[in-house]
Amino acid sequence: MQIVIIGSGNVAYHLAKAFTRKNIPLKQIYGRNTSDLKEISEELGIPYSTDQLEDAEVYLICVSDRSVEDISKIITKKECLVAHTSGSLAKEILMGEYRKSSFYPLQTFSKSKDLEYKNIPFFIETENEEDKNVLMHLASQISEKVMESNFEKRKYIHLTAVFACNFVNHLFSRAKEISDSQDIPFDYFLPLIDETVQKIHEIDPRSAQTGPAVRNDTRILEMHEQLLKGESLEIYKTINHSIKKMYEL
Amino acid sequence: MQIVIIGSGNVAYHLAKAFTRKNIPLKQIYGRNTSDLKEISEELGIPYSTDQLEDAEVYLICVSDRSVEDISKIITKKECLVAHTSGSLAKEILMGEYRKSSFYPLQTFSKSKDLEYKNIPFFIETENEEDKNVLMHLASQISEKVMESNFEKRKYIHLTAVFACNFVNHLFSRAKEISDSQDIPFDYFLPLIDETVQKIHEIDPRSAQTGPAVRNDTRILEMHEQLLKGESLEIYKTINHSIKKMYEL
Repeated sequence: MQIVIIGSGNVAYHLAKAFTRKNIPLKQIYGRNTSDLKEISEELGIPYSTDQLEDAEVYLICVSDRSVEDISKIITKKECLVAHTSGSLAKEILMGEYRKSSFYPLQTFSKSKDLEYKNIPFFIETENEEDKNVLMHLASQISEKVMESNFEKRKYIHLTAVFACNFVNHLFSRAKEISDSQDIPFDYFLPLIDETVQKIHEIDPRSAQTGPAVRNDTRILEMHEQLLKGESLEIYKTINHSIKKMYEL
Repeated sequence: MQIVIIGSGNVAYHLAKAFTRKNIPLKQIYGRNTSDLKEISEELGIPYSTDQLEDAEVYLICVSDRSVEDISKIITKKECLVAHTSGSLAKEILMGEYRKSSFYPLQTFSKSKDLEYKNIPFFIETENEEDKNVLMHLASQISEKVMESNFEKRKYIHLTAVFACNFVNHLFSRAKEISDSQDIPFDYFLPLIDETVQKIHEIDPRSAQTGPAVRNDTRILEMHEQLLKGESLEIYKTINHSIKKMYEL
């Protein structure tokens, strides 16, 4: 099958790398950023272009959510399958007369970090059964976790990821702000953070909850509120309230 | 040095285990729960008692925050050093005529989970230099990260841990609620969560922030708000607001 990847960012790079490792040939990697494309092309041995989009059977659009609609217009071919890789866009955002689909890898990608691709879940949505089989097969070659998912479900997947990944990272930022203010190295908290995450590999997070809110330890909760201000105080109150509600305290 | 551990919960067990591994003898493990004490005693080869507290130079009180004050009264000896292991209590909570101190390990302990003790930070507070040296030396034998810390600082350490550990776990609970509601296995999010945490071992969480709020993607933020209700919606709004404030969006 002839596959072209559109984009030169982290998702494009890692998908290209995952396919290459499994000896799935890519016909081209196409995008706007010449230096990024050149780098990927040299590392993975895939032809690249910034102006001549190759003819292919499958196009995977790996660009930021805001650019998907625009870039989708450059594919003028009708007899082909085009997939975007976004968790938050309907497949109908794609503007062309081709068959539309979504090929969503649930992971946070950094260029420099190597990943175990087989653990990355892929969520697939297509217009018909045949396209579904094509994309499910493609994803299965790099990942062990491939699921069909319509846009409605994909929205919730992305929303779950926002809580479990984006919001968690922001809590780390606010935590570091507190420790920085007291000259306590944030590194000191990494073993605790690692253990917190390790735990939920084994038990339901609901059963793993610890801390003053779930103990309803008002003395400590009040002491903490006096140490905080601004957004951190708002977060403190909101999450404690949510913990108390969850455990009916 | 003669050391007695008071308590039979997770902190007591892990401290006893860490000392035993480093061939630091414990004179006794003392507590109320016979079956827990017996189990620890058999595994680690430490004498235990529920009624006869042994004479010692150092007592480490490893019980829940609420029980520290009460249990501290059973030590009637004056010429000894008593430490509690809480992040949220002043050393003055200890009720006796002995020398008071705090010996706070920053970790979340589960009985069944083995831990790399050398990575656990210990925070020490004492009444005088000599006691400080004793506890710093003791902690250094099991951990590579030992720091002095008064109560004021310890409060902030605990508060940082609440954000980075307790609150993060609650976000996992709320995330799982969302994925459960759509029959998406929460396991699918574990590689993403692992990667989120792995990242902050290498870069500042502030630089690692991703997601719709930091991109100020109002279309997605509004769509997400319509999918949420109750406490999760409140958390969604509060954290997005905090992200926007942090990045001045």
